[in-house]
Amino acid sequence: MTVARPSGRTPEQMRRVRIERAFTRHAEGSVLVCFGETRVLCTASVENRVPAFLRGKGEGWVTAEYGMLPRATHTRSDREAARGKQGGRTLEIQRLIGRTLRACVDRSALGERTITLDCDVLQADGGTRTAAITGAYVALVDAVRWLRGRREITRDPVFGAVAAVSVGIYKGVPVLDLDYAEDSACDTDMNVVMNDGGGFIELQGTAEGHAFRREELDALLGLADQGIRQLFDAQRAALGA
Amino acid sequence: MTVARPSGRTPEQMRRVRIERAFTRHAEGSVLVCFGETRVLCTASVENRVPAFLRGKGEGWVTAEYGMLPRATHTRSDREAARGKQGGRTLEIQRLIGRTLRACVDRSALGERTITLDCDVLQADGGTRTAAITGAYVALVDAVRWLRGRREITRDPVFGAVAAVSVGIYKGVPVLDLDYAEDSACDTDMNVVMNDGGGFIELQGTAEGHAFRREELDALLGLADQGIRQLFDAQRAALGA
Amino acid sequence: MTVARPSGRTPEQMRRVRIERAFTRHAEGSVLVCFGETRVLCTASVENRVPAFLRGKGEGWVTAEYGMLPRATHTRSDREAARGKQGGRTLEIQRLIGRTLRACVDRSALGERTITLDCDVLQADGGTRTAAITGAYVALVDAVRWLRGRREITRDPVFGAVAAVSVGIYKGVPVLDLDYAEDSACDTDMNVVMNDGGGFIELQGTAEGHAFRREELDALLGLADQGIRQLFDAQRAALGA
Amino acid sequence: MTVARPSGRTPEQMRRVRIERAFTRHAEGSVLVCFGETRVLCTASVENRVPAFLRGKGEGWVTAEYGMLPRATHTRSDREAARGKQGGRTLEIQRLIGRTLRACVDRSALGERTITLDCDVLQADGGTRTAAITGAYVALVDAVRWLRGRREITRDPVFGAVAAVSVGIYKGVPVLDLDYAEDSACDTDMNVVMNDGGGFIELQGTAEGHAFRREELDALLGLADQGIRQLFDAQRAALGA
Amino acid sequence: MTVARPSGRTPEQMRRVRIERAFTRHAEGSVLVCFGETRVLCTASVENRVPAFLRGKGEGWVTAEYGMLPRATHTRSDREAARGKQGGRTLEIQRLIGRTLRACVDRSALGERTITLDCDVLQADGGTRTAAITGAYVALVDAVRWLRGRREITRDPVFGAVAAVSVGIYKGVPVLDLDYAEDSACDTDMNVVMNDGGGFIELQGTAEGHAFRREELDALLGLADQGIRQLFDAQRAALGA
Amino acid sequence: MTVARPSGRTPEQMRRVRIERAFTRHAEGSVLVCFGETRVLCTASVENRVPAFLRGKGEGWVTAEYGMLPRATHTRSDREAARGKQGGRTLEIQRLIGRTLRACVDRSALGERTITLDCDVLQADGGTRTAAITGAYVALVDAVRWLRGRREITRDPVFGAVAAVSVGIYKGVPVLDLDYAEDSACDTDMNVVMNDGGGFIELQGTAEGHAFRREELDALLGLADQGIRQLFDAQRAALGA
Repeated sequence: MTVARPSGRTPEQMRRVRIERAFTRHAEGSVLVCFGETRVLCTASVENRVPAFLRGKGEGWVTAEYGMLPRATHTRSDREAARGKQGGRTLEIQRLIGRTLRACVDRSALGERTITLDCDVLQADGGTRTAAITGAYVALVDAVRWLRGRREITRDPVFGAVAAVSVGIYKGVPVLDLDYAEDSACDTDMNVVMNDGGGFIELQGTAEGHAFRREELDALLGLADQGIRQLFDAQRAALGA
Repeated sequence: MTVARPSGRTPEQMRRVRIERAFTRHAEGSVLVCFGETRVLCTASVENRVPAFLRGKGEGWVTAEYGMLPRATHTRSDREAARGKQGGRTLEIQRLIGRTLRACVDRSALGERTITLDCDVLQADGGTRTAAITGAYVALVDAVRWLRGRREITRDPVFGAVAAVSVGIYKGVPVLDLDYAEDSACDTDMNVVMNDGGGFIELQGTAEGHAFRREELDALLGLADQGIRQLFDAQRAALGA
Repeated sequence: MTVARPSGRTPEQMRRVRIERAFTRHAEGSVLVCFGETRVLCTASVENRVPAFLRGKGEGWVTAEYGMLPRATHTRSDREAARGKQGGRTLEIQRLIGRTLRACVDRSALGERTITLDCDVLQADGGTRTAAITGAYVALVDAVRWLRGRREITRDPVFGAVAAVSVGIYKGVPVLDLDYAEDSACDTDMNVVMNDGGGFIELQGTAEGHAFRREELDALLGLADQGIRQLFDAQRAALGA
Repeated sequence: MTVARPSGRTPEQMRRVRIERAFTRHAEGSVLVCFGETRVLCTASVENRVPAFLRGKGEGWVTAEYGMLPRATHTRSDREAARGKQGGRTLEIQRLIGRTLRACVDRSALGERTITLDCDVLQADGGTRTAAITGAYVALVDAVRWLRGRREITRDPVFGAVAAVSVGIYKGVPVLDLDYAEDSACDTDMNVVMNDGGGFIELQGTAEGHAFRREELDALLGLADQGIRQLFDAQRAALGA
Repeated sequence: MTVARPSGRTPEQMRRVRIERAFTRHAEGSVLVCFGETRVLCTASVENRVPAFLRGKGEGWVTAEYGMLPRATHTRSDREAARGKQGGRTLEIQRLIGRTLRACVDRSALGERTITLDCDVLQADGGTRTAAITGAYVALVDAVRWLRGRREITRDPVFGAVAAVSVGIYKGVPVLDLDYAEDSACDTDMNVVMNDGGGFIELQGTAEGHAFRREELDALLGLADQGIRQLFDAQRAALGA
Repeated sequence: MTVARPSGRTPEQMRRVRIERAFTRHAEGSVLVCFGETRVLCTASVENRVPAFLRGKGEGWVTAEYGMLPRATHTRSDREAARGKQGGRTLEIQRLIGRTLRACVDRSALGERTITLDCDVLQADGGTRTAAITGAYVALVDAVRWLRGRREITRDPVFGAVAAVSVGIYKGVPVLDLDYAEDSACDTDMNVVMNDGGGFIELQGTAEGHAFRREELDALLGLADQGIRQLFDAQRAALGA
């Protein structure tokens, strides 16, 4: 199967991935993650409080918020703070990020603390949610290292790793890591979140054009698995682990 | 594989499905859909206008809104109208319903009209979004029949059918059509939307407890396929088609 | 005085009234009340908390919320949750429902509990607020029976009964229990809430066309009194009292 | 029947009423109305536009908005602009004011114009809504005179007059024009809006304590009628009519 | 330098200033301040609570809210409560008023109390924020006297006085105390808040047309100083101090 | 006068200023501006529309929005989009940025276009509004160059330059370009916006501790003038002008 991807990549080729830690100075974890031209700043903030439903239970919480600078995109989009509410897409993405990161955290080991992962898109070119998950994991690990460095916690609450990539069917061919040009023209778009044990954390596939068949799904999952392995390598390299 | 489901059902057994048309009298389509104790009222409303981004293009629009009566659930939840905004879960579900129904509509054949599917949960017992999609399809067909009966459109804009079911891994065993007791205790929860050609429209799987493996995914998709076939039968029976 | 009512009813004839208890299963009281084609689901929810202004006083609270499904009406109206606020009409009606039900409750006997009456209109054909009051009373009694069944309270906090009906002047003739066709064309519209001792709890009359004179008011109050007696019968029959 | 009213008034005695025109200079009508210590500033603003539902029909619109300065009351209440929404009581009152004033306006004679009556309570001591209606009528007449003075309209769109007063049962005795001390302690509270032909425009009675009987209602309506006649005199005197 | 000011005033001439105490009866301080046709009602409300960030510190708080009646201006502006939010101009002004009044208050001497200054513009003709500051100071002193009269505080928390005036360059000439006609046509507009020791509390200058030069700034500050001295006289006269 | 500034700078020493153009790729102008550790991303977006009040007048508009990433600061602050409104400080700053940039734009030469300057703080260490103005000017020039490169406009709408710096009195000594440590401890804080002709565009001085005297004001204005000259050099160097 061959296809001319707008970027000239082969179907199974990811974009260049960069993970830059300590991008800003105040946050306990601060990571700029780039999937090609997509750039997301992920900060992890530690606070000594938990939401009301967890108070007094000795457990911590991990949550996420997502935002897009108004001109991260080709044309300017309204600022959500000015419109007075977060859109459905924003809420959906930040729920996804929070949920997937909680999947690799032992909340008892965290104690009564909240770690908030703010994922702000500085520049968008497709795949902002998968980049955000991949980068937020690194920011989370940094925040936990900061806590351990101060001896506030003794056990490591993070087990394993999580990373995410998009896959899709572009002009009839399954391809890995869609950029904006592909994303806006593809038939099927799927976001896959996995852990480093090879298990699925989250699978979200949408048929944009026609419905996708079982064998297409299988091909997409195979590509995603390849891509996510590379992301685990990039995370480990960044973390010096 | 055996498991004691709270309802006494076998793993591959759906709840009793009922689809009652003309449940209320004003809407162009009005369907009460029940998956066991889950009851959702789905109305289809036809309006001769389209959103701004479609004006003058000769195409129609299909969209959905979702709501839950405050005491549809075990404990009362706040009324979203009183809180002044729809929650993330609500927005996520109504985006899903709209997206999946648009997947079986030829919007050119609809003309410059909007069909809004209001899915309001009267009683919740797990699977409200899959029941809503399944019932909203029937309401949509009724609204289109109403339009054709008045000769406002000539071609049928609905092609094929869509239906949805949830599957999950409960106490280690893949089961079909989760009720609330299972949903709140299961390890993996997946919503599957398919068309009657056997293609996937949407796939949303979430690992609540531990990550799910490829073979588990395969088993879940098999169960979903079986369940959705029964839903297509129920839709056809209701529609007298 | 004769008048051709759109429904063919005589001036002093009410629509058929149905009161169906246990309509949904989770609420402590759940009543579907129908005044002809007007159908309102009234649920009563018991919670062990009171608003801030009552805390520590040993008294309970009874309050109401009102909603209309978007397509309960002839043409679809916007969902208040989506618009981000409840309209003036909604707030006015739910304040009325709460106020009139508190008029038959001894809040000391209730203890520090809140009973919330959610009145959601599934189908509207005039008189939704009067149906809601009449049905909410039955849901309230059911919730109180539930509390007494669990021996959480010893004295019955509900004294007497309340019910409500609309009256109006349609084509010059005073008529009882306006349906939508009459309501939108009448000169005067009055909602009357009474208790079973024959006292007035609330009286709200509005001249839509020309002002109404004292003798018209007298005739309307006479009709309302007749109608409300029938509603008390229907409530008693439903409650098996 | 005798009762010691907190103010020392007899049961059928109104508070001193003052109506001061041209209280502020920008509005087309600007009236400060005082019922004793209750002071409401009513301005009438003319704009050459109508709401969407009236466009192109050649008819005008009359509407009202109501507000209370935060410290118009004994204790400071939150500013509605700061809370981000108008409360149910505010919406209810401003709907009432607009409705009752439209009852004396021929909207065709007004042409495609909107007159907005802003009723802002500078100081509250009971009866703010009845004072507002009484004063807004005068501001409305002034705005219409301004239009006629500029020859923008030829026919007078205002026919008759409207005024409002509260009545209630205080310590068992029907009394006229409740002040705050009576309002917060009375058993029944009724607002009556009449026109100068002796017809009722609006009647809103609420049993705060026990239900009120028919003979009490009759007594209250008699008192209201007496009070409103005095208000018509005060309006006429103010308008030099 | 001569200039024809719309009002006929000389460049260094202020409008007539009136300060009327006890304008309304419920507030602990209630002042109507008029700078010519600009009229602002300033009330001071004392409450026995402080914002969360001050709880338990033994200090008080002074804050302000600002509003404009819809028809205080030449054309009606939307009611902020109806629009559901306060505009940027409103927030900016109320922050300014609160900040400048805190500059003359010893918050320890106030104890754990909040004094809220509500400044509501009844009629606007330029300079509403400077009138508000000047009047709010008097209301604040009255509220403090009320507290001292009740012996709730022993030391006077107010030290010195603050007042404010606007200055600007109108048709090339520096002028004092701009009215609306000047304000909407001037090149530079500056609000100056000073204390009675001759120090600056706040200085806000904006070049509306061309940038202003250093010598213009010097002239403006000279005028402001003259004007504010007159305001201190007016405050003292009003307070009988 | 000597003072130990936390950063070790001399009183008249600015922080290191960096201006990096083309920081992101989609916007017509995109500038990262750094005043020491304060980093603000300023993008300029060109749109072919103007606000309603300018339609059909042949003039353009320049406006600004300001935001702060939640963890740009020492402790995390709430995301304004999640809280559902922009705070007073945000609105005040974005009004200031828009106003000062309009002061160097000939809006007729711009034609019916809007240029929106989005200033988003990635990292805060004092002086974010002055950095934003200084950087936004460069982004504005880039957007205008882009328009001229496409020959959409013929005359340059930007005349002169604007830049801004803060000055303050720290431990009794006037200092230039406050960082966070100084800002939170200083007695007087002043933001000065000037054009390259040496005129003042905006002056905002606030006494945080005690009031400031005329001679202190003079010293601050002298420092600001020195600092802003350096900023004009940095802007020119960045623009290659």
